[in-house]
Amino acid sequence: MTPAGPVHRRVPPGDDRERLVCDDCGFVWYQNPIIVVGTVPIWEDRVALVKRSIEPRLGCWTLPAGFMEVGETVEAGARRETLEESGAEVDLDGLLAIYNIVRVRQVHMFFRARLRSPELRAGSECSDARLFAWKDLPWNQLAFPSTAWALEHCRDTRGRELGQPFSNPSEPPSLEEFAATLAARTD
Amino acid sequence: MTPAGPVHRRVPPGDDRERLVCDDCGFVWYQNPIIVVGTVPIWEDRVALVKRSIEPRLGCWTLPAGFMEVGETVEAGARRETLEESGAEVDLDGLLAIYNIVRVRQVHMFFRARLRSPELRAGSECSDARLFAWKDLPWNQLAFPSTAWALEHCRDTRGRELGQPFSNPSEPPSLEEFAATLAARTD
Repeated sequence: MTPAGPVHRRVPPGDDRERLVCDDCGFVWYQNPIIVVGTVPIWEDRVALVKRSIEPRLGCWTLPAGFMEVGETVEAGARRETLEESGAEVDLDGLLAIYNIVRVRQVHMFFRARLRSPELRAGSECSDARLFAWKDLPWNQLAFPSTAWALEHCRDTRGRELGQPFSNPSEPPSLEEFAATLAARTD
Repeated sequence: MTPAGPVHRRVPPGDDRERLVCDDCGFVWYQNPIIVVGTVPIWEDRVALVKRSIEPRLGCWTLPAGFMEVGETVEAGARRETLEESGAEVDLDGLLAIYNIVRVRQVHMFFRARLRSPELRAGSECSDARLFAWKDLPWNQLAFPSTAWALEHCRDTRGRELGQPFSNPSEPPSLEEFAATLAARTD
């Protein structure tokens, strides 16, 4: 028999909920929500987006973001992902928003950031990296709801200091509905 | 041979860093920073703390906090941990602070919270739960640096709305040094 890995649901000793356990070696796989860190990178009054060249949402535009790694802070992770995906170094203004994406076990943290230069270079998981004026943002080709939320929340903070971070909209509309609302804004 | 579990360091295909892999079943253990959620629970001008009855820091006082679970938001996790450890239901004012505890692979998120009642009840991992006036806080018996930071940062926001969340002190003093500074404050 080939060992099966942590595939059995059991409550480990001293715990109060089921975890995935390997019956061969006893390994308990504690699964916790994963942190995704990213930025809304600004140059003058334009925003940097990257075009995804991998699934999911291949071909859609998104903000530079990815999984936080062990050994780094949330701030360092956000800067690293921005550099990897858009080729750009940024300075962080502060935490713009935290979004709970419960269904996929993720917590997204977006920082508002200032690009040090307008030169961008698409990373290995992207086919393009480009600056967009707010009125030209590709609202109908955004990759994820949190991409749209963070752009919207960032636009809400234009020209002012950041306050309390935003969180999920209380009754989130579909990405399509939200895109329509966003596209209609003229400020 | 007993299977060994995910104990071998290898770079999985398509990845760019070493992960712990099980050579018996092929399981890749992606380890990511873990989110700890908690609150600074306030009743009038007093703060609720719980006394730890488990290691580490058994016998020390701490804010109610613990690991965020899959299936909940950061806000729900903070309320759940507060209820489990102090027996108290709280309403959240907002996010007070995010602390990177890189060495132990954790990100701590503390919310400022209002207790719905001053009745507390120590949970299963606590031997006591009590309200403290700010001047009577057990500064020399606090469990963790982030406990002290969150108390200090919460005191800094007394009587006003929350703004941008606080983050790690730029040059964190030792817990003992910090405790002395905090104990000396008279506001």
